[in-house]
Amino acid sequence: MRMFDVIEAKRDGAVLSDEEIRFFVEGVATGEIPDYQAAALCMAIYLNGMNAHETATLTLAMAASGDQVDLSPIPGIKVDKHSTGGVGDKTTLVVAPLVASLGVPVAKMSGRGLGHTGGTLDKLEAIPGFSTALDRERFFEVVNTVGCAVIGQTGNLCPADKQLYALRDVTATIDSIPLIASSIMSKKIAAGADAILLDVKCGSGAFMKTPEQAIELAKAMVSIGEEVGRTTVALITDMDRPLGKAIGNALEVVEAVRVLEGRGAEDLTAVCVELAANMLSLAGKGDLVACRSLAERQIENGEGLAKLLQMVEAQGGNPHSLEDFSLLPQPGLMREVRSARSGRVFSMNTERCGIASVALGGGRIRKEDGIDYAAGIVLERKTGDRVEVGETLARIYAADEDHLDEGERLLASAYEIRDEKPAELPHFFARVSSSGIDRY
Amino acid sequence: MRMFDVIEAKRDGAVLSDEEIRFFVEGVATGEIPDYQAAALCMAIYLNGMNAHETATLTLAMAASGDQVDLSPIPGIKVDKHSTGGVGDKTTLVVAPLVASLGVPVAKMSGRGLGHTGGTLDKLEAIPGFSTALDRERFFEVVNTVGCAVIGQTGNLCPADKQLYALRDVTATIDSIPLIASSIMSKKIAAGADAILLDVKCGSGAFMKTPEQAIELAKAMVSIGEEVGRTTVALITDMDRPLGKAIGNALEVVEAVRVLEGRGAEDLTAVCVELAANMLSLAGKGDLVACRSLAERQIENGEGLAKLLQMVEAQGGNPHSLEDFSLLPQPGLMREVRSARSGRVFSMNTERCGIASVALGGGRIRKEDGIDYAAGIVLERKTGDRVEVGETLARIYAADEDHLDEGERLLASAYEIRDEKPAELPHFFARVSSSGIDRY
Repeated sequence: MRMFDVIEAKRDGAVLSDEEIRFFVEGVATGEIPDYQAAALCMAIYLNGMNAHETATLTLAMAASGDQVDLSPIPGIKVDKHSTGGVGDKTTLVVAPLVASLGVPVAKMSGRGLGHTGGTLDKLEAIPGFSTALDRERFFEVVNTVGCAVIGQTGNLCPADKQLYALRDVTATIDSIPLIASSIMSKKIAAGADAILLDVKCGSGAFMKTPEQAIELAKAMVSIGEEVGRTTVALITDMDRPLGKAIGNALEVVEAVRVLEGRGAEDLTAVCVELAANMLSLAGKGDLVACRSLAERQIENGEGLAKLLQMVEAQGGNPHSLEDFSLLPQPGLMREVRSARSGRVFSMNTERCGIASVALGGGRIRKEDGIDYAAGIVLERKTGDRVEVGETLARIYAADEDHLDEGERLLASAYEIRDEKPAELPHFFARVSSSGIDRY
Repeated sequence: MRMFDVIEAKRDGAVLSDEEIRFFVEGVATGEIPDYQAAALCMAIYLNGMNAHETATLTLAMAASGDQVDLSPIPGIKVDKHSTGGVGDKTTLVVAPLVASLGVPVAKMSGRGLGHTGGTLDKLEAIPGFSTALDRERFFEVVNTVGCAVIGQTGNLCPADKQLYALRDVTATIDSIPLIASSIMSKKIAAGADAILLDVKCGSGAFMKTPEQAIELAKAMVSIGEEVGRTTVALITDMDRPLGKAIGNALEVVEAVRVLEGRGAEDLTAVCVELAANMLSLAGKGDLVACRSLAERQIENGEGLAKLLQMVEAQGGNPHSLEDFSLLPQPGLMREVRSARSGRVFSMNTERCGIASVALGGGRIRKEDGIDYAAGIVLERKTGDRVEVGETLARIYAADEDHLDEGERLLASAYEIRDEKPAELPHFFARVSSSGIDRY
């Protein structure tokens, strides 16, 4: 088989055979296929697409290109959750303990923040002492005793995907549905869960700008799950404004605790309950209506919060820092960002909110950048809210005035204030499963 | 400017700006743009196309990426001729002296054969002593005294095209009209002629399989010529069977001499006269009707042949070898390839005829391969001819039996013999110029 012929076939709109796709992925993993040929094929796939079967084959081949985690030492149905990335998305910190507190094991591998999107590992590491680098044995032990654990990727998961992603990133071939779907799903499949819940964000802070695009991506991923025998459900949720009020690592830990205390922002709480309910349902705990009640009850009775504290302690973190927030990293300075006019917050450029948090020190532009765990934003006003001139839109936190200046400039420009009220934004757009699309 | 944005723009079907195209070509020439980004853009261009202005800009940028030949030391209107490559195409050996014998200077840089297509340099080098490696000064001197000279490419012409072509060759992005057109025209423009005559071949031995594809390519090249101020005309000629009877270097020299003696094959003579007439017309020698008569007269009066002998002598070759062919390289063995059945030659796989000549030793598969100047084929029967079982289809020449065996196997399989007569093939399909398409 020659890579030239594979490129030519996709260039001409043909359906690639399983053998051709595996040949490509193996060649990328071993380095036998040069970057320029892989880049040409990625562009041909971008422009000519892939059908459901090709996409599933690509996914499995990438999952098979490296280690595949065996979660069988953990009894029960393991459900993984994956978010396509957003601003202020701290749902894992809430949902993992909620679900675990009901006896459903959560063995989760998470990632770090990059660019305008945050990462769960960074948020957890804002907790003094917390380690996300447990070895496999200790990881299983924490899941089996506490019920949940969150660590960084271990081993050599999906090296073909890593190579291809890096190449797509510099060849303008990222935002192709089959390529995104197979990249996400290959990692979830290699991570070993029995069922997968996807949180597909859409809006100005997300990769997918419209609900329709997000539904297309969700359908592709659910279809892959079906083809490879892992039940997969996707929720399409709003990212046209940040989720909750806090953006920045320690600030988001505090907000997650607030949700588990029953005092969280309404949008964030609703999304957390819906995600938890879907995970519980995938784990066989009943229908969605019953599972929503279960999740809400674990907030009311404090068992979700107790589970978070147990997990933090088991992973070396100081659980008292979640009761006394002064034990969390503290920012040097705070500034209030005030509105230049009166009116309604008509829209928020959510990506820019994320970039403002990065500028304050709370995120990274490059992978090797350091992070200021205390830096970030607390939004006092969000889309739809009334504001008078001079009133506070948000509080921003950083180590020094330079960071505050840059963060304020960016954040202020992310707000659009008008006289009229914007249309009401839903938290959820749709739920996509093998049985179809349910609109909310 | 970032290459990423250029790729993204073409991926999304945008028209690239002059600046973007120049940035790309300069980056390819300097090596600053990595192969994988160039490959992604080539695939995006392949699938989304380029308009006439983009194609002209790409052409000029590639021409400007290296040396540009200044032909001004040669007085008169310099007309270049370029063939897109065929089997048995020895027209330059006929046309250059014909035109020069009428006072139109021909300062031609030619190429070598590769794969199934032959190259003018190899044919000329079959003449004992002939040198195609004259320095610039001697080249001009021969053109100014004799009237014509044919040499290999000198200097560093179109390095960006060289790099891109090599990349396209391994990424299935060769056969894109804007990319082929700009590649050919960039070299013609860098070579410095005032006007350009293109011989665009079509059929089973050519890159373009149908007249319509060939016309598309011709239109793109004529349009580039217009945009950059070099009058360009293209003839679409038949390559659904080899041109003339001889394939192979010394054999083709003999056939070229036969045409200049007025004893050439009808198809080859007709194409040579038409090409010469168009070059003469581009050089201001009158309309096509008048120029055809001029060209025919130079065959009848022997002045074309005399000019070829002068050129051969001026370039170090032995002119007597064109009068006494026993002075040309002689093959070790000859074999007759006979027909396995009676009928009509219904079609010829012309590419396979070219490959048979390569297998006999007359061409190369790789650039570094050696060549047997005496090896090749003389076709006794061509498309449309009647043949009885056991009669000779062709004579083949090579150094040994092994070469003859392989050449015979390939050549025999290139002939399709049927009971019915095929449709008559024209020599010419169309003439494309800035004033439009004239069908023959």
